[in-house]
Amino acid sequence: MAFNTEIHPGVQEQAPEQTRGFVFNHSMLRVKDPKRSLEFYTRVMGMRLLRKLDFPEMKFSLYFLAGPGANEGAPEDAGERMAWTFSQRGILELTHNWGTEDDADFKYHNGNEDPRGFGHICFAVPDLDAAVRWFDENGVEFVKRPDEGKMKDVAFIKDPDGYWIEIVEPGRLKQLGL
Amino acid sequence: MAFNTEIHPGVQEQAPEQTRGFVFNHSMLRVKDPKRSLEFYTRVMGMRLLRKLDFPEMKFSLYFLAGPGANEGAPEDAGERMAWTFSQRGILELTHNWGTEDDADFKYHNGNEDPRGFGHICFAVPDLDAAVRWFDENGVEFVKRPDEGKMKDVAFIKDPDGYWIEIVEPGRLKQLGL
Repeated sequence: MAFNTEIHPGVQEQAPEQTRGFVFNHSMLRVKDPKRSLEFYTRVMGMRLLRKLDFPEMKFSLYFLAGPGANEGAPEDAGERMAWTFSQRGILELTHNWGTEDDADFKYHNGNEDPRGFGHICFAVPDLDAAVRWFDENGVEFVKRPDEGKMKDVAFIKDPDGYWIEIVEPGRLKQLGL
Repeated sequence: MAFNTEIHPGVQEQAPEQTRGFVFNHSMLRVKDPKRSLEFYTRVMGMRLLRKLDFPEMKFSLYFLAGPGANEGAPEDAGERMAWTFSQRGILELTHNWGTEDDADFKYHNGNEDPRGFGHICFAVPDLDAAVRWFDENGVEFVKRPDEGKMKDVAFIKDPDGYWIEIVEPGRLKQLGL
């Protein structure tokens, strides 16, 4: 794929040698209640917990999750598993600052109202209609169903903290945006 | 790895059948100036641009980036490439709302001051010291260098919008947190 710098401003076609081996490992979201979030991501979204790290002195815990099937080959040894976890792509890190789950008024900001910034995470699914049924069976809140809005064939749901999760079926996106 | 629900609250050990084939595809960040962001992510961070989508009616563009080497096997055909892009793990989507780059006062929120939520993205690198030199050579701003703060061997840099990027060398994290 050749790049035209007029339509692809700033793009460097060849990665510099100094970036060899760089891996986009994870994205981190703060969560209010780890029990609700872990139930959601490991059951409704099918992710696997790779590692939990507790930092009692600073009163927080970190949870590292991978997509379904992605933890095959993960070492059992804690240290090796840590290094392995940080070598993967597509990891989700959830940060729990202890005690937020007990504060009824506490709420994190999902980035889609002012002040905006972060937008969403996205899961690809093999069958969008089946995924929508699965989310409905589990009482998941939708921001947008596939037949709503301008972007057909794309859904957005909310996780327990209100973070947006885009849901797409890759094969149905071939005509998008062209 | 067996889970203890007291220390791993809410975790379901086996993914439900209904989540088979789910893939954590991407995280989306809004960026003020795509030229600066694309230069940063394709040159300094070594990512590759997989797809750009323009939505003139809604006045925004989307850029899909993958880690170094991750676009091997990407089809040339635009539609097939779109489906392929959404099937991968570890994609970064940048959203550009047209015109923000011309507003000197415009700034996105990185989630690490109130109201908090999203925290950071993270890149693993094969050599943390070499990566720090590379970032210094390129004038990248640090939130925290590896020898600062309580978390040794972990750096945080800022992207052009001020989003935090954690930088880790997986082999140096084996002792972390336990």
